[in-house]
Amino acid sequence: MKKYVSELLMIPGPTPVPNQIALAAAKDMMSHRGGVFKKLMLDLTAKLQTLLQTKNEVVVLSASGTGGMEAAVSSCFCRGDKVLIAAVGNFGKRWIKLAKVYGLEAEVLEYAYGQAVDPSAVKALLAKDTEKEIKGVFFQMNETSTAVLNDVEEIAKVVKAHGALIVVDAISGFLASDLKIDEWGLDVVIAGSQKAFMLPPGLAVVAVSEKAKKAIETSDLPHFYLSLKAALKQAAEGQTPYTPAVSLIYQLVESVNLLAEEGLDSIFDRHERLMKAVRSALRSLGLKLLNENDGTASRAVTAVYPPGNLNADEIRKKMKDDWGIALANGQDELKGKIFRIGHLGFIDPKDVLAVIACLEIVLSQLGMPGIQWGKGVQAAQNVLAKGD
Amino acid sequence: MKKYVSELLMIPGPTPVPNQIALAAAKDMMSHRGGVFKKLMLDLTAKLQTLLQTKNEVVVLSASGTGGMEAAVSSCFCRGDKVLIAAVGNFGKRWIKLAKVYGLEAEVLEYAYGQAVDPSAVKALLAKDTEKEIKGVFFQMNETSTAVLNDVEEIAKVVKAHGALIVVDAISGFLASDLKIDEWGLDVVIAGSQKAFMLPPGLAVVAVSEKAKKAIETSDLPHFYLSLKAALKQAAEGQTPYTPAVSLIYQLVESVNLLAEEGLDSIFDRHERLMKAVRSALRSLGLKLLNENDGTASRAVTAVYPPGNLNADEIRKKMKDDWGIALANGQDELKGKIFRIGHLGFIDPKDVLAVIACLEIVLSQLGMPGIQWGKGVQAAQNVLAKGD
Repeated sequence: MKKYVSELLMIPGPTPVPNQIALAAAKDMMSHRGGVFKKLMLDLTAKLQTLLQTKNEVVVLSASGTGGMEAAVSSCFCRGDKVLIAAVGNFGKRWIKLAKVYGLEAEVLEYAYGQAVDPSAVKALLAKDTEKEIKGVFFQMNETSTAVLNDVEEIAKVVKAHGALIVVDAISGFLASDLKIDEWGLDVVIAGSQKAFMLPPGLAVVAVSEKAKKAIETSDLPHFYLSLKAALKQAAEGQTPYTPAVSLIYQLVESVNLLAEEGLDSIFDRHERLMKAVRSALRSLGLKLLNENDGTASRAVTAVYPPGNLNADEIRKKMKDDWGIALANGQDELKGKIFRIGHLGFIDPKDVLAVIACLEIVLSQLGMPGIQWGKGVQAAQNVLAKGD
Repeated sequence: MKKYVSELLMIPGPTPVPNQIALAAAKDMMSHRGGVFKKLMLDLTAKLQTLLQTKNEVVVLSASGTGGMEAAVSSCFCRGDKVLIAAVGNFGKRWIKLAKVYGLEAEVLEYAYGQAVDPSAVKALLAKDTEKEIKGVFFQMNETSTAVLNDVEEIAKVVKAHGALIVVDAISGFLASDLKIDEWGLDVVIAGSQKAFMLPPGLAVVAVSEKAKKAIETSDLPHFYLSLKAALKQAAEGQTPYTPAVSLIYQLVESVNLLAEEGLDSIFDRHERLMKAVRSALRSLGLKLLNENDGTASRAVTAVYPPGNLNADEIRKKMKDDWGIALANGQDELKGKIFRIGHLGFIDPKDVLAVIACLEIVLSQLGMPGIQWGKGVQAAQNVLAKGD
């Protein structure tokens, strides 16, 4: 039996890729400098704007999400600029590293694992900056490493009152829950292909406000391949400054068509339900979540402690070996101490039900006492069975 | 939610196709008259012989399983030949129809739905044929329509004692459980691509004994495209008499490599476990199986009555609409009266666990009283959790 199980990627990206999207990569290559590609790119960016709920310009970078983050840092700021970074996990730390690499002077609000950014703390800190020296505020929409969803709208409100650029890493958060770029006034927003887009990794989508474009004009930081200035200039012509990842672009076209057909409400709804089902199931089995606050629960991933003296890595190994289910490890100091269940993108209720059923078996086989098979499944069923 | 569920084919063929096999269809076309294709076909048939546990010649017909059945009838017999057909369901009736089309004189042993062929009845009937007028005995290894597994070995034993050709439709049964062509002395065995091979439909694999080849030499029935004589003649050269379905052949090569790597014991084992898990789960929910006899339970599919006054078609519709799970209808007089859950080919324990969880929800939402969510899942977990 063990030799023959299909693989199910329950990690927070890459998610499984639907066949329809996978096969789009096999389309004939075309010249990325020809008219057909130009039309394709212009159509694509228009559809991306709709999904991103923005009239801001959108560019597609042939780089993974981190490339998009670096583009935001290196394209929008100047040497020595002060910025504020609100970090709640490993990807928050990535903003700190990027700021350091580019010589920005970063003030950092750091939170314990599992906590969300407190908008009032951001407000208090910005209130002290009467000289408006802080040029940008960086944070994550969804912190993948700790399964925390930040309140982007509230954070944006206090930053807007101050005037700094609002830079949001929405790589794992985009499409998993609502993100109103224009209504909330977000300046730079980064999404990644391997998350709710259901694509392989390799593309970053960046939405840039008029205000950010002005900052881009005056940036003196070194940037070339990841230059938002160059990307924006070319995007107006349906072009990219450097050779784009053509097959991934084909797949992104397929994805945005599927997503547009489904509609944002349905996309948000299914992510919310899977999140609730997973949390309810894990709790019913007596497991402790890293982030117990339902109000800031990630729609994309759930982080959980192993029960009792069980080993998180052993749980993950046995889920993989026995059932073909890939779960994610913790990151940083949480490595080996938690495991994470991804439930975004091309993951559906059937997958969640199966994962909980398999997890019940694995936990009891590894020695968790008193676990009743089917109980966690029942909790998930109770969430998922609700009609539209 | 309803708008966005992935499709899970839990029907007795076609089964889901693994990506690795699906993508093999995209390989560049080649000339089926060239040396590369010849080598590919010779390799393929050698590997098929191993899986079929036979030294008999094996041909691949570019036709679905029924084409293989017709090839057996039209290629191995003569006008007016007497044959015996042991029919336990819809595909048994197909043998009867084929015999009629080709003017064979068929004696028929017919069984109630859910029953298996009784080898002693075959024996008794053949015993009366002292003149050896009966030239062939036809039956199914696995009757897909009623979820019944016949005892091929025992039936073959009594036919062997008589001397008639043993013709086995193993389309849905092959690989789901043991089939020893040489040891049991089977003369013509037909397998189909869309079952445990995990391919799309379109290919029939036919194994032909030396004894059957002699019958083929003297056949006077009309046959052309489905001629086993022509196929055997060409197969020796790694060729097919007519243009083969090249992309499906590529996929079959991929499949036999995967299956050979896994090994027959593991293949049989996983099918048996899924069958046991499904039966145990359905029974724990109080459902009545069409074939209650575990000894003749199909390893490929399980047929079950809807509980109480629930409608089988409504159950299937709701499973499809709400959860994206395709279940099979009954056939013939069982249409609308039962539903069938396929569990062969590229179906794995996770799929079975999810299907049972979803079925629990659907049954109670359609009004089945007293159903406890998670109970059927638990029964399936109890079967599937057993180590190797």
